[in-house]
Amino acid sequence: MIIDCHGHYTTAPPELKAFRGEQLAGGRPAPPTISDDAVRQSIEANQLKFLRERGGDLMIFSPQASAMEHHRPDEAVAAEWARVSNDLIHRVTQLFPQHFAGVCQLPQTPGGGLDASIAELRRCVSELGFVGGNVNPDPSGGHWTSPPMTDPYWYPLYEALVELDVPAMIHVSSSCNPNFHALGAHYLNADTSVFMQLLEGDLFAQFPTLRLVIPHGGGAVPYHWGRYRGLADRLGRPPLGEHLMGNVFFDTCVYHQAGVDLLLRVIDIDNVLFASEMIGAVRGIDPETGFHWDDTKRYVDAAGLSDDDRRKVFELNARRVYPRLPD
Amino acid sequence: MIIDCHGHYTTAPPELKAFRGEQLAGGRPAPPTISDDAVRQSIEANQLKFLRERGGDLMIFSPQASAMEHHRPDEAVAAEWARVSNDLIHRVTQLFPQHFAGVCQLPQTPGGGLDASIAELRRCVSELGFVGGNVNPDPSGGHWTSPPMTDPYWYPLYEALVELDVPAMIHVSSSCNPNFHALGAHYLNADTSVFMQLLEGDLFAQFPTLRLVIPHGGGAVPYHWGRYRGLADRLGRPPLGEHLMGNVFFDTCVYHQAGVDLLLRVIDIDNVLFASEMIGAVRGIDPETGFHWDDTKRYVDAAGLSDDDRRKVFELNARRVYPRLPD
Repeated sequence: MIIDCHGHYTTAPPELKAFRGEQLAGGRPAPPTISDDAVRQSIEANQLKFLRERGGDLMIFSPQASAMEHHRPDEAVAAEWARVSNDLIHRVTQLFPQHFAGVCQLPQTPGGGLDASIAELRRCVSELGFVGGNVNPDPSGGHWTSPPMTDPYWYPLYEALVELDVPAMIHVSSSCNPNFHALGAHYLNADTSVFMQLLEGDLFAQFPTLRLVIPHGGGAVPYHWGRYRGLADRLGRPPLGEHLMGNVFFDTCVYHQAGVDLLLRVIDIDNVLFASEMIGAVRGIDPETGFHWDDTKRYVDAAGLSDDDRRKVFELNARRVYPRLPD
Repeated sequence: MIIDCHGHYTTAPPELKAFRGEQLAGGRPAPPTISDDAVRQSIEANQLKFLRERGGDLMIFSPQASAMEHHRPDEAVAAEWARVSNDLIHRVTQLFPQHFAGVCQLPQTPGGGLDASIAELRRCVSELGFVGGNVNPDPSGGHWTSPPMTDPYWYPLYEALVELDVPAMIHVSSSCNPNFHALGAHYLNADTSVFMQLLEGDLFAQFPTLRLVIPHGGGAVPYHWGRYRGLADRLGRPPLGEHLMGNVFFDTCVYHQAGVDLLLRVIDIDNVLFASEMIGAVRGIDPETGFHWDDTKRYVDAAGLSDDDRRKVFELNARRVYPRLPD
């Protein structure tokens, strides 16, 4: 079985975007009315089509990351936007229970509290059967005004994640800072920055069962693994394997063979989860290969793993990190 | 001949730091008095020792990056700090002309103009024989309040670099944002962000002979080279080779074999410059190898390059990018 741990509903029916437009225009629109057929069609022609063509089975699926827009400060609007977005993900998981498991958007806001986020996480996991949540380390959208993720500000959210036994994927949303292109800088910078925050701190002494997935192949981290090993040494932290890698996992959203080869060469096989973020940042076909850049299964298949290791990356690690996944 | 294109004077005599301390305490101290012997000793026991032990010949040398502190807003203080720091680099190059070539610190400030920076660049190149300059894309120190490096704000500086025929190394200084550890996040994020700014823009149509060195192995970029190729395609930009790689160069400051292997596998050999940033971010000895993490020559030596390619990385590319280097 092949589990893709990182998909977003980038192809949601247009009614969702229209709802958001009304919200941002200052209205309090009713949740959008979208038929089952429209949901089915938006999935079958896109994520499910590619999943089938590429040989995948199950996708861990959340709302579109860049559309979460946690930088909007109105907490009531954020709560409604998260609820509507998550309810639509839930419908996908109900229509295609074999193929999609839900991960939720949280109604974070810049400088806001986490109560509403924790309530929405609980609702999604306990009532909707979701298997994890996305957590944005920078709700400001590129101004980085929140405390680092090792700060006690975040602890109530971690307590809920631990209690529910679900992981968080660390994933920023859109960028409001012209220095950071969302897909080409902000996403990767966030991955890199949070890993380094965890290295500096000692979060997993407080939360030994907390599990964090750092997407996009871990940002810059595996490429600079020697730098991080050396910084841990310089800062008097334990070796990374002991300090972080019982709790931190990287996905395979790296869009060329050399990058995936490096990831699998450097990072322990137990810490790598297969993912594509398909129909996401990079949607086209690589003229050098004739295949989609985001068809990451091809890179993992070609990486020369043993059968046991391949099964860990494709399935078993995801089951360990996301224990609420269906069998 | 082996040229290390990225060294900082992290071992400057303590009088320099004392001078800076007086500056930051609000004084206007006289430039520090440091004997030739003290300068000689600080180099011979450190950078020159390692250069010799590791088989290097010439280091392109600038003031300590994290101490540049462009986030301090006083323009007169910044100008004096840059001048004193650069004058000390000049003395190193005079005492060891075979082994050190200067690259200058610019007196950038957050939101400040570039006139003083251009004047200092001209002074260092024309009067002190420097071969390049460091440019900080984020003088705010982690708040990223400046315009992207493709913005016309930066053009007068680029005009001076082009006229003087010297490259700029893109290098941030310390971080004032607790989300970004300077060495473990801010440096790499800056490298990644600026590359993406260049990808989004068309700066080299305006400045076809401008040369920018992106250090630390290009941040996250080579590891995500497929992502950048795909984003160029998605954004309607030309292929990266044509769009950027006549003007952008990455150094080899990547502190493990797998990372350097990836860099040399993915990036055209003409775009990679040997560097170590020795006695910098990561100073210790890797217990896995028994050698210093920042002994990057070992990784390049072991990367399986042809003699011609190795000579490009170790010397010829640096001579092309830094034409003012001594023969």
